[in-house]
Amino acid sequence: MSDGLTVPFALAAGLSGAVASSGIVITAGLAEVAAGSIAMGLGGYLAARSDAEHYASEYRRERQEVQDVPEVEAQEIVTILETYGVTPQESAPVIAALQRKPEAWIEFMMRFELGLEPPNPQRALISAATIGGAYIVGGLIPLAPYFFVPTVRDALGVSVGITLAALAVFGWIKGGFTGTPRIRSAAQTLLVGGAAATAAFMLAKAIS
Amino acid sequence: MSDGLTVPFALAAGLSGAVASSGIVITAGLAEVAAGSIAMGLGGYLAARSDAEHYASEYRRERQEVQDVPEVEAQEIVTILETYGVTPQESAPVIAALQRKPEAWIEFMMRFELGLEPPNPQRALISAATIGGAYIVGGLIPLAPYFFVPTVRDALGVSVGITLAALAVFGWIKGGFTGTPRIRSAAQTLLVGGAAATAAFMLAKAIS
Repeated sequence: MSDGLTVPFALAAGLSGAVASSGIVITAGLAEVAAGSIAMGLGGYLAARSDAEHYASEYRRERQEVQDVPEVEAQEIVTILETYGVTPQESAPVIAALQRKPEAWIEFMMRFELGLEPPNPQRALISAATIGGAYIVGGLIPLAPYFFVPTVRDALGVSVGITLAALAVFGWIKGGFTGTPRIRSAAQTLLVGGAAATAAFMLAKAIS
Repeated sequence: MSDGLTVPFALAAGLSGAVASSGIVITAGLAEVAAGSIAMGLGGYLAARSDAEHYASEYRRERQEVQDVPEVEAQEIVTILETYGVTPQESAPVIAALQRKPEAWIEFMMRFELGLEPPNPQRALISAATIGGAYIVGGLIPLAPYFFVPTVRDALGVSVGITLAALAVFGWIKGGFTGTPRIRSAAQTLLVGGAAATAAFMLAKAIS
């Protein structure tokens, strides 16, 4: 959503510095929103599916190794735990327990050797739809003024105002979720959006 | 780089269906590349910095807990290992070892309870610069024909050709790194780029 606010906003601001027609700003803005939402949503979904396949292929490899070379896998656990000061004697009971339950052993290796979490394909689909949808919603905010305000220059002013407000609110809310102090999070989304829009505006102005 | 190829390509294709001037396509395309590279590069850098701060704050919390309520932390390890079939007696030696080295204990909790890896701020900076730079390089490929080919319609044809070729090559190379079969990876980047460009083209055509 932050990208959806930032990039169409910056593109519209950039074009406002270069062309006189709201129609072109709207056409370019909506084309960007369509392209960006598909690239991020569909791209994100396919990446998540690749991750799921990577997990499955690593799982098969670990299962094979636990079956074929259990002593190598046991030694790997000893080595991992040794980095935390656990001696081979102390880790031996854990290894003995895992050897009783090969399925648990494979999952232990996936998580603690490879650092991989089991993926959730259902969640990947929801997440892709959310990303794509949020990009559309975010992108329509900076473009809306160009529909309603007669001149490009005036529409740009309104767009800058509501988009910076939306970026600040979005950053503020996001800070609550990520644990970054809210005021810092709001300042960061404003900084990224402002820098992107300024660069796009100056570049478009320079070449037009 | 895949996004850098996809979104400016789709935007330029969309505008080619709606406007007659290469100048506008180039202006919009370069504005998008400037905005996108800053949003992705700077945004990625700030996100990485937030991750590093999140790690540091979680680390402080774990250190406090290991100091103040070591029996609670010890019980957490018992619980984690029990999900893998390790009994409390079998995990006791590991806990005793960690209690000898509180620093290692904290790191053990960070990795095995919270699943957090120590972040690398240096790498975040390089990664942000790489992402931003790759977006610029990727974005210039679909825009290049509009500089050199006289009419928008002809430039669109050349742009479609070289961008689809670049997407396929990029997907092919990426497959080698991610472990996805190369041909599938190439088909996926083509699918995302093609879908985004088609949607942008049809939308821009419909509203113009």
